[in-house]
Amino acid sequence: MSSFPKQLLQSPSGFPDLGPGAAIAQRRILDVIRTQYERAGFVPIETPLVERPAVLLAKTEGEMSTQVYGLRLMNPAPDAQDDSKDLALRFDQTVPLARFVAANQHEIDFPFRRYVIGPVFRGERAKDGRYRQFTQADIDVIGDGKLELLHDAEIVSIISAIFTELDFGSFTVRINNRKILQGLLVDMGVTTEKISEAIAVVDRIEKVSRSVIVSDLGQLGVSDAKAVDFINMLTGKMSTDETLAALAARVPTCSADIFGEGVSELERVIAGVRSLGVDENRFRIDLSIARGLDYYTGTVYETQFDAYPDLGSIASGGRYENLAGTFTNRNLPGVGISIGVTRLLLRLIKAGLVDATIKTIAPVLVTTALGLEENASTYLDYARRLRESGIATEVYMASKPLGKQLQFADRRRFKLAVIAFEDEIASGNVILRDMKTGEQEVVKLTDLVQKVQRAIA
Amino acid sequence: MSSFPKQLLQSPSGFPDLGPGAAIAQRRILDVIRTQYERAGFVPIETPLVERPAVLLAKTEGEMSTQVYGLRLMNPAPDAQDDSKDLALRFDQTVPLARFVAANQHEIDFPFRRYVIGPVFRGERAKDGRYRQFTQADIDVIGDGKLELLHDAEIVSIISAIFTELDFGSFTVRINNRKILQGLLVDMGVTTEKISEAIAVVDRIEKVSRSVIVSDLGQLGVSDAKAVDFINMLTGKMSTDETLAALAARVPTCSADIFGEGVSELERVIAGVRSLGVDENRFRIDLSIARGLDYYTGTVYETQFDAYPDLGSIASGGRYENLAGTFTNRNLPGVGISIGVTRLLLRLIKAGLVDATIKTIAPVLVTTALGLEENASTYLDYARRLRESGIATEVYMASKPLGKQLQFADRRRFKLAVIAFEDEIASGNVILRDMKTGEQEVVKLTDLVQKVQRAIA
Repeated sequence: MSSFPKQLLQSPSGFPDLGPGAAIAQRRILDVIRTQYERAGFVPIETPLVERPAVLLAKTEGEMSTQVYGLRLMNPAPDAQDDSKDLALRFDQTVPLARFVAANQHEIDFPFRRYVIGPVFRGERAKDGRYRQFTQADIDVIGDGKLELLHDAEIVSIISAIFTELDFGSFTVRINNRKILQGLLVDMGVTTEKISEAIAVVDRIEKVSRSVIVSDLGQLGVSDAKAVDFINMLTGKMSTDETLAALAARVPTCSADIFGEGVSELERVIAGVRSLGVDENRFRIDLSIARGLDYYTGTVYETQFDAYPDLGSIASGGRYENLAGTFTNRNLPGVGISIGVTRLLLRLIKAGLVDATIKTIAPVLVTTALGLEENASTYLDYARRLRESGIATEVYMASKPLGKQLQFADRRRFKLAVIAFEDEIASGNVILRDMKTGEQEVVKLTDLVQKVQRAIA
Repeated sequence: MSSFPKQLLQSPSGFPDLGPGAAIAQRRILDVIRTQYERAGFVPIETPLVERPAVLLAKTEGEMSTQVYGLRLMNPAPDAQDDSKDLALRFDQTVPLARFVAANQHEIDFPFRRYVIGPVFRGERAKDGRYRQFTQADIDVIGDGKLELLHDAEIVSIISAIFTELDFGSFTVRINNRKILQGLLVDMGVTTEKISEAIAVVDRIEKVSRSVIVSDLGQLGVSDAKAVDFINMLTGKMSTDETLAALAARVPTCSADIFGEGVSELERVIAGVRSLGVDENRFRIDLSIARGLDYYTGTVYETQFDAYPDLGSIASGGRYENLAGTFTNRNLPGVGISIGVTRLLLRLIKAGLVDATIKTIAPVLVTTALGLEENASTYLDYARRLRESGIATEVYMASKPLGKQLQFADRRRFKLAVIAFEDEIASGNVILRDMKTGEQEVVKLTDLVQKVQRAIA
């Protein structure tokens, strides 16, 4: 008798189980992401989930450094050479990329376009929407010494292709350039040392009231009047071309050269986005996008569902000056984005935008109405025909009445059931049942594959 | 200046990095496995990589229990609620399945067919072909109380479909039933308590000499003459039907009832395998297959490449009485297999059976012979056309002479390059270059998609 405590059968807090419904939905999302990453010429690499602490902690500071999980052998054998203290779980996909590129820089052909889809681990307190293990789907392009701005443009077309194909509703890729923000802040009198702090203020522009932003900028030496102008500029609803025109008009009067640089970069990125045929409704310039991290130095992106801003950014990233400065002297600029798939998936399910009640990938269930003793070979032959034509097919292989088998098909949401009694078997026919409507059709066995293909097309 | 020690840029021992070539090869293998698992009606679940030690160690003994990696926060924040001592990394895919099924037994529709493809972790000493993190691709069917033998047959058809599609050379699924071995051993006088030990002897039958087996069985009370007969029976090269006939002939004289049970089970499994249309050359009965673990109680499988027996078994598994006896009183018999993908991949690369030198998934590189300053929109438009037709396409977006760009295409092993100078652009043409032959053809831009589709078909 098992006396195992029931509560220990739940997966640990922050490490969610995905049952078939959610796992099937996730699989579809990951397939679309991967296909679009590959369509744009990205290639996979697979670094281990385990890295050396020396690598993970080389440049990691603040909160993140408190969240790194190290490994330890729980019950090492007496003669074990236990080196587990030199092992830890990755917390993002960027540090492993930096290590890999630094280690293999002489074999890599730059520009290096890599995608990676896999789990990362963070020892933070588990709360709603925060997970300790979650799947990140990243792309980055790494250049050798320099990297053309068209790569930044291409990233927008990839995000757009992914969420268009996923079809969860309309979305907008919001594009900015940190140099524009930096230039405006310098122009308003923020000193170089305070720029990071000021950008952190901008980062909260959608979350707090205007007066808080004005006051916070005031602390950094910006007059109220200038702060209000600044906020108006950042949050004004203008078209892409209006924004570009307003920015261009500002260049001659802006005291900070970096502003003009940012505007010119943004212009090139937008031109590239258009050359790549991205729908004008799927992107816009949003001067208030800052991305908190100091890491980003040029283009930055966030992406939102238009009808669900509360879901937060579903694909974010940007341009950085140097991927692997900690690990090599070679200058390796990059641009990339990350899609937090676990969070996205579980929020979409919660919002009812993803159906996690479909518990089969196979569209067809071959039922076994006459049981398995004498007619197994007949039923298995039906499945063989369908599978050999590439149609995913499950055979119901337990001894239950047909009614129970159809209930099983219903609950799992199969599209079609194949049914055969003595008469059908004798006459070389089967019954094809549409599980949604309950309609049944007698079809010749030799037509089965074709009928099914038509029904699931 | 970076002074990061170079040797620390290598991934830790036992945790291999896969660069683009190996990762692309792995991706193809995993795609084939997944597609065939799904075609047979299996559904994914995703349990976390992290489980509670109480779950992982509940029934894990011996060497494995010394190899479990626990987690620990490396630098916990002062106010952290550190529960990392209750977290550990899974070492296989079966214990998490058992926990998941026990936890969700009232929501699961049995028979429950799940597949899982993902990493597991074992803290063993890293040596050739042993990894500390490796990818396992498993399927299991779990029944409620009982489970039809046809499931055992279906597993053979799935292994066969996978390795037929992968096309790494001919292979054989070797099938046995532990009850047959058990019956023969009992009939020779091995006592019930010594059965496990005797099966461990059988498990080594391909690895050590006959005389060692005879002597080891002698220690368990088997006479030399009987041991020799037994070895002859187990290792005789007979056809499937000859073996079945020989087994059937033995049933009346065998003193152990379990022998007859095993023979009858094996007969049903083989009949099912044939109903599912598996090629007769892709499977055979091998009475010497034992699978070391006590876990297995009926059908057992191993799979080998015919020309590469040294690669070992590439897909192994079998039938077990009860999946989750540790976690629930419900009786949940199952049958399953596991494919150790990391080991398979790296051995296939080493044996030259898998080409890991192709470093692109996209077949087409759009070159940028005129540079990116003025003609970017033209080149990006070529890529847009190809991508919108589903053709994976990379654009060369660095400023290099065309010759360098073609060398890049060569090294990465692109199939086609698209080239355009002023003349082509002015006349609405592009040059399509076959990277293998070097042949070039001028094609109308409006025909580009069709030409490329034909060239890569």
